[in-house]
Amino acid sequence: MIYLDNAATEKPDKKYINAAEKYLLEEYFNPSALYKSGYKLHLELKEARRNILTRIANENNFSLVFTSGGTEADNQAIFCGGRRGNVVTTYGEHSAVFSAVNELKQRGLEVRFANLNSDGSMDIENLLSLVDEKTSLVSVIHVNNETGAVNDIFSIAEKVKEKNKYTLFHSDGVQAFGKISFRLTDNIDLYSINAHKIGGVKGCGALLKKKNLQIKPYVYGGGQEQGLRSGTENVFAIKCFEGAAVDRYLRLDESFKKVTVLNNTMRRLLDGGLFTVLSSENASPYILCVAVKGVRGETVLHEADDNGLIIGTGSACSSNLKKRYSRVILACGVDDVTADGVLRLSFSPNNTFDEVETAADILNKIVSNRKRIMA
Amino acid sequence: MIYLDNAATEKPDKKYINAAEKYLLEEYFNPSALYKSGYKLHLELKEARRNILTRIANENNFSLVFTSGGTEADNQAIFCGGRRGNVVTTYGEHSAVFSAVNELKQRGLEVRFANLNSDGSMDIENLLSLVDEKTSLVSVIHVNNETGAVNDIFSIAEKVKEKNKYTLFHSDGVQAFGKISFRLTDNIDLYSINAHKIGGVKGCGALLKKKNLQIKPYVYGGGQEQGLRSGTENVFAIKCFEGAAVDRYLRLDESFKKVTVLNNTMRRLLDGGLFTVLSSENASPYILCVAVKGVRGETVLHEADDNGLIIGTGSACSSNLKKRYSRVILACGVDDVTADGVLRLSFSPNNTFDEVETAADILNKIVSNRKRIMA
Repeated sequence: MIYLDNAATEKPDKKYINAAEKYLLEEYFNPSALYKSGYKLHLELKEARRNILTRIANENNFSLVFTSGGTEADNQAIFCGGRRGNVVTTYGEHSAVFSAVNELKQRGLEVRFANLNSDGSMDIENLLSLVDEKTSLVSVIHVNNETGAVNDIFSIAEKVKEKNKYTLFHSDGVQAFGKISFRLTDNIDLYSINAHKIGGVKGCGALLKKKNLQIKPYVYGGGQEQGLRSGTENVFAIKCFEGAAVDRYLRLDESFKKVTVLNNTMRRLLDGGLFTVLSSENASPYILCVAVKGVRGETVLHEADDNGLIIGTGSACSSNLKKRYSRVILACGVDDVTADGVLRLSFSPNNTFDEVETAADILNKIVSNRKRIMA
Repeated sequence: MIYLDNAATEKPDKKYINAAEKYLLEEYFNPSALYKSGYKLHLELKEARRNILTRIANENNFSLVFTSGGTEADNQAIFCGGRRGNVVTTYGEHSAVFSAVNELKQRGLEVRFANLNSDGSMDIENLLSLVDEKTSLVSVIHVNNETGAVNDIFSIAEKVKEKNKYTLFHSDGVQAFGKISFRLTDNIDLYSINAHKIGGVKGCGALLKKKNLQIKPYVYGGGQEQGLRSGTENVFAIKCFEGAAVDRYLRLDESFKKVTVLNNTMRRLLDGGLFTVLSSENASPYILCVAVKGVRGETVLHEADDNGLIIGTGSACSSNLKKRYSRVILACGVDDVTADGVLRLSFSPNNTFDEVETAADILNKIVSNRKRIMA
C-alpha cells in the first residue's frame, strides 16, 4: 500500500509511540494528583509543553495550552478571541475555523471573509480592507490544507496590527507545524497546532498564545492547563506529540528537501494532458492539489484505492459535510467541472521515491483508461 | 505500590490496550476519509458507539457522541443545554459541571444550587423547590466523585419533568458508568461518561443524548460525530473505551461484589478512634471518603506515598484550584478541621484484599504516630 493522504493523518511513528508507551501502563497516574508519581507527570507535561512550544516560539513571549486536537484549538481561538464587533477570516480556512466563525455569525457577530487567489492563498489587499476599528479577531490559515498555499501570516499580522493594534491575530498552523520553517513573531496572538499530522497520535493538539494575552477557557472544569483547558491530561498522546515535534524539527530542513523532491517528481510524472496542477510552485511541498478534468475525483480515489494507492480529495474533514465540491477549491475561482475532479496528494518524509513513481503511474493509467472509456 | 486512587484515574487494562493497539500503527487512517481503510474505521467507530451506548441505554432512544473526556461531555451538556432562564444543579457536582455553570452565571443566566445531605447526596426536596417554569436545565451528578454518594437521578428526573416537562435533565455519570448497575430512563436527556475511570485510556469520553433531542455542537468543524463533535476521531482511545466498557459490564455484578468487600474490609480495618467514615453505607463501594481529625489529609497522603500507598484527598481535579478545603465536603456540612483531614480511598476490581489490609495498616500507623507526636 502506498499512502499519500498524509495531510488527513500521518501514520504515527513507532519510535514516538514506543518512547511514550510507559505513560499508558506504568506512569498512568492523574497529573493533578498530589503524590510523587502524579507530580512527576505534572513536571513531564511542563517539559513537553516547553519542548513543543520552543520549536516555533520564544518561551518568554508565548505559552502553550494542550487541547484534544487542532479543531478544539481553533475553536478556543475563535470563540475566545472573537467576542465583539467583527471577525475577519478567509474563504480558505479549514472547517474548524470556518464552521466556528459561522457559529459566531449565528450569535450575532459580523464575520467578513477575504477572497482567495487562484492557488488558495489569501488576497492580502482584500483581507486588509476588511479590517477596521471594530475587528476583534483576524484568523488566517498558515498552510492551506487543500492546496498547500502558504500564507505570509507574519507580514499580514503586522499590517493588521498597524490598522488596529487591538485586533487579535490567530492562525491555524496544523499543516505548517513540523513541516515548514518559521518562528512566531509578536504579532501572532494565537496559533493552533496538532500532533497527528506530524506522526503523533490522534486526540492531541495545542493552542499557543501570547503570554500576556488573557483569554477565557473553552473547556471548564478542574483548572488544568493553567486554568485554560480542563480535563485530565492525555499524557500518552502529549508525550508522543513531544517526541514527534522534537524529532521533526531536528530534521526539518532535510525532510523539507526530501518532500520537495517527492512533490516535484510527482508533478513531473503526472501526465500533463490529464492532470492540471492547482498548487502553486511555492506551496508547501507536503501538499499537491491536482485536478482531472471530466473525471470525478472520488472515482479516481476509489480506483486508486483498489490499486493499493491511498490519496485524498480535498479535506478529509469536509467529507462529513456531504458537499460535492470543496468550498475552498471553488473559492480559488475554479469551475465546477474542475472542482469535481480535484485530488489531494499529500506526503510525509517517510514516503519514498519509488512510492511516488508507482503512484504517478497508477494515477496516469486510471485517468487515461477512464478517458478512453468515456471517449 | 498499592494504588487506591482509582477514582482519579484507573490503571489502563493491558488487554484493552493490546486489543486496540492496531489502531495506532496499522489502521491509523482518518475515519472521515473516503477510501476503504478510512470507511472501515468509520464502521468500527459506529460499532464502538453502539457497544458502549447499549451497556446503559436503549439504542432506539439514545445516541452517543464521543468527546475528549468527561469534562468536555459535561461542558457540552451544560453549555448546549442551559441556554436560557435558570439552571438548577447541586453543590455536589464535579468541577467540570460546577465551573461550567459558574461560567453560565457570568454570561447572565441564573444558576441555582441544591444543598447536599451529610453524605454528599443531593437534598431532593430542596432541588425540586428550585425548579420552575423557567428552568432550562437540571444537572445532578450520578455518583459523587468525593464521597461516592449515589443520587437517584431517575426518580429526581421524573419529578423534575412533572414540574416542567421542557426542562432538560443531565447527569455526570463518570463515577457510575461501568461501576454500578443502572439503565438510562427516558427522563434523562444527557449523560456524561468517561473511559479512563474504567480502565480505558485518557482523552476519551462520551455524551449520551436522547435521540430526538436537538442540541448544538460544542466543538465546530468537519462535522464528525453526526455534526455534534468535530475533530479527527481518536480511534485508538475509542476502541480502548469500547473494550473497557464491554468487559466491565460483562463482570459488573462480580466486580461490584468484590469492591464492596474491599470497601467493607477497609471500613472495618481502619481504626475507628482515628478515622471517621464520611461515605454512607449505601454509597458506591468504589469510593470511600474518610476523615482524620486534627491531621491534614495532604500530610497523610504524602506519608502514605512514602510508604508505597497511593491515595487521594478529594477530587484530583480540584487540586489545580489550590483551595485548601473541598467545596463538596464543606457542603456536606462538615467543619473545617474535619474537611482538612479528608482522604479519598477509591478502588478498582483489580485491587486485592491483601492490598486493602496492608493499606489500612499503613494508614492506621501513620495517623496514630502523628497523633502521638502531636500529643
